[in-house]
Amino acid sequence: MISPEQSAREQALVELVVASFDDTADPRLKELMRALVRHLHAFVREVRLGEAEWDAAIRFLGEAGRITNAQRQEFILLSDVLGISMQTVAVNNEAYRDATEATVFGPFFTEEAPFIPYGGDLSAAAPGQPCFVEGTVTDVDGSPIAGARLEVWEADEEGLYDVQYGDGRVAGRGYQLSDESGRYRFWGLTPTPYPIPADGPVGSLLAATGRSPMRASHLHFMVSAPGLRTLVTHIFVRGDELLDHDSVFGVKDSLVKDFVVHSASDPTPDGRNLGGRSWADVRFDIVLAPSSL
Amino acid sequence: MISPEQSAREQALVELVVASFDDTADPRLKELMRALVRHLHAFVREVRLGEAEWDAAIRFLGEAGRITNAQRQEFILLSDVLGISMQTVAVNNEAYRDATEATVFGPFFTEEAPFIPYGGDLSAAAPGQPCFVEGTVTDVDGSPIAGARLEVWEADEEGLYDVQYGDGRVAGRGYQLSDESGRYRFWGLTPTPYPIPADGPVGSLLAATGRSPMRASHLHFMVSAPGLRTLVTHIFVRGDELLDHDSVFGVKDSLVKDFVVHSASDPTPDGRNLGGRSWADVRFDIVLAPSSL
Repeated sequence: MISPEQSAREQALVELVVASFDDTADPRLKELMRALVRHLHAFVREVRLGEAEWDAAIRFLGEAGRITNAQRQEFILLSDVLGISMQTVAVNNEAYRDATEATVFGPFFTEEAPFIPYGGDLSAAAPGQPCFVEGTVTDVDGSPIAGARLEVWEADEEGLYDVQYGDGRVAGRGYQLSDESGRYRFWGLTPTPYPIPADGPVGSLLAATGRSPMRASHLHFMVSAPGLRTLVTHIFVRGDELLDHDSVFGVKDSLVKDFVVHSASDPTPDGRNLGGRSWADVRFDIVLAPSSL
Repeated sequence: MISPEQSAREQALVELVVASFDDTADPRLKELMRALVRHLHAFVREVRLGEAEWDAAIRFLGEAGRITNAQRQEFILLSDVLGISMQTVAVNNEAYRDATEATVFGPFFTEEAPFIPYGGDLSAAAPGQPCFVEGTVTDVDGSPIAGARLEVWEADEEGLYDVQYGDGRVAGRGYQLSDESGRYRFWGLTPTPYPIPADGPVGSLLAATGRSPMRASHLHFMVSAPGLRTLVTHIFVRGDELLDHDSVFGVKDSLVKDFVVHSASDPTPDGRNLGGRSWADVRFDIVLAPSSL
C-alpha cells in the first residue's frame, strides 16, 4: 500500500512537471507535453516501475537507436508492435461512408520508387509469383478520380523489401497515376507472409513476450489526390492463417481480398507471356474520403 | 466529438494489443507491457495524435538514438526532463524515518572513477574552487557504517563533466570507503550551475517549450553498503537561484546544504596549502535506510 504522504509526494511531482510546460508558445505542443507527462507518470506510478526496469527501458531505447538508420527504423517497429501506429491511424482516419479503410504505414516506404506505366511491372528483379493488380480510384460518390497518385510497395517472396537487400537496388515498388477513368493496373508479386525485422530490440521484446514477428501477407498502397484524404493502406490475402495474428495489428476485414491463383496455362488479362509461370490476380477498388472531414 | 462507433473501434484495438501479451512467460513483464500499452493508447486517444505529430515523435526518437553513445545518453536526459527519472526515484525510495532522500542518477556516472583516500582530492585537473566535503554514513539508528562505498562525481566550474572533455581524462570523480567510524572526507570542487547537454533533440524540446536546460548546482553521491538501501542523491547549494527551476526536477529541500566560502587566508581544515586560492566547505551526513523495506 502506498501511504497518503507518499502518494501526495508523487502527485506533487507530476504537477511540478506539468507546470514546467506553462511557457510553451505553441498551444498544441503544450497540450501534447502535458498529456504525455500525465500518462507516462501514471504508468510509472501504477506499475511501481523498478530502477532496474527503468535501466532496462533506457537500454532498450539506446539499442533501438543504435540499430536505426535510413533503412532500418526500429522506433517505427516499436510503435507498430505496441499498436500505437494502428491507433494513430484509427484516430486520424475516422470511418466516412464507404471510404477505403486505412492501416499502418510501416517502415519500408521510400521516396525513390520509379514510375510504372499503366499495365507495367513494378517487381523489377524481385523474386515471386507474378500478380496482376487492378482497380479504380473514386470518391465516396463513385466519381472516378483521374491522376490519383498510387504508391505501391511490397516484399518479395523471401519476405524482403528492396531496402533490405543492402545493395541499393530498387524492386517491388513503384508509383502510378490513375487514368482519366480512375483506373490503375500493374503487375507486382503475390504477397507472402514475412517477419518484421526481429534481430533488434523489438524482436527481442516479441520473443520475450511470446509473440510472433510475422506479418500477414500484404501489399502496401498510398493513394493521394487533391482535395481527398490521403489513404495509407494494405490489401491482405483471404485465407492467410496469419490474418488473426498480425504482429502490427494492421488487418481489417474490409482489406482482405481474393487473390485468385492461375496456372501457367491460363491466359493473362493483358496477354503478357510469363514464360510458363503460374500467376495470380486481385482487384482492389479504392474509395477516397474528402480531405476536410 | 468522437462517435460511439469510433470510440468502440479504438477501445477494441487497445484490447487486441493488450491481449497479444497473454503468452508472456514472465508475469512482471506481462504486467508492464499491458500497462504501458493502456497508458500510451490513452495518450494517443486523448490528444487525438496527428500523423504528422507521430512522425515528429519517431524523428525525435531517431535523433535521440543517433546522438546517444557510451558518453552521451539522450534517453536518460529525456527521462530526466519529463520528470520520469525523478518519479522512478520517488516510487523506489519511499520515505523511511530520517533516511537521506534520493534524487536522480543523471547520465554522467561512469565505472572508471579512481579510489580517493580519506582526505584526498578527486578534482584532478578539473578547474574550479576547491571544496572540502566531509560527513558520516550511518543507519537510521545512528550506528556508523564502516566501509560504505561512496561514489562521487561532479562537473567542473565550466559545467563540464570529464566525459564531456572528449579526451578520455578522468577528473571530478572518485570513490571512497567510509572509515571505521563511518566518516568520509575528500576535496572536490564547489558545484556551479550548468546546462544539461542542449545540442540534441532534448535541448530542442526544452527550447520549444520555453524551459531552461540549467541544472541547480550540485554534487552527486551514490552510497552503498551491505544490507542497506543504495542511495543515489545530490547535495545542492543553499542560495542558488536555480533551486526552484531545476531542469530535471531533482531538488529536495533536505538536500540543500550550506556551502561556506572561505577566503584564501582562512586555514583549511586539514592544513592543506591551496596556493592562495579561496575555498569552500560543506558537511553532508548520510543516513541509509535498510535494504528490505
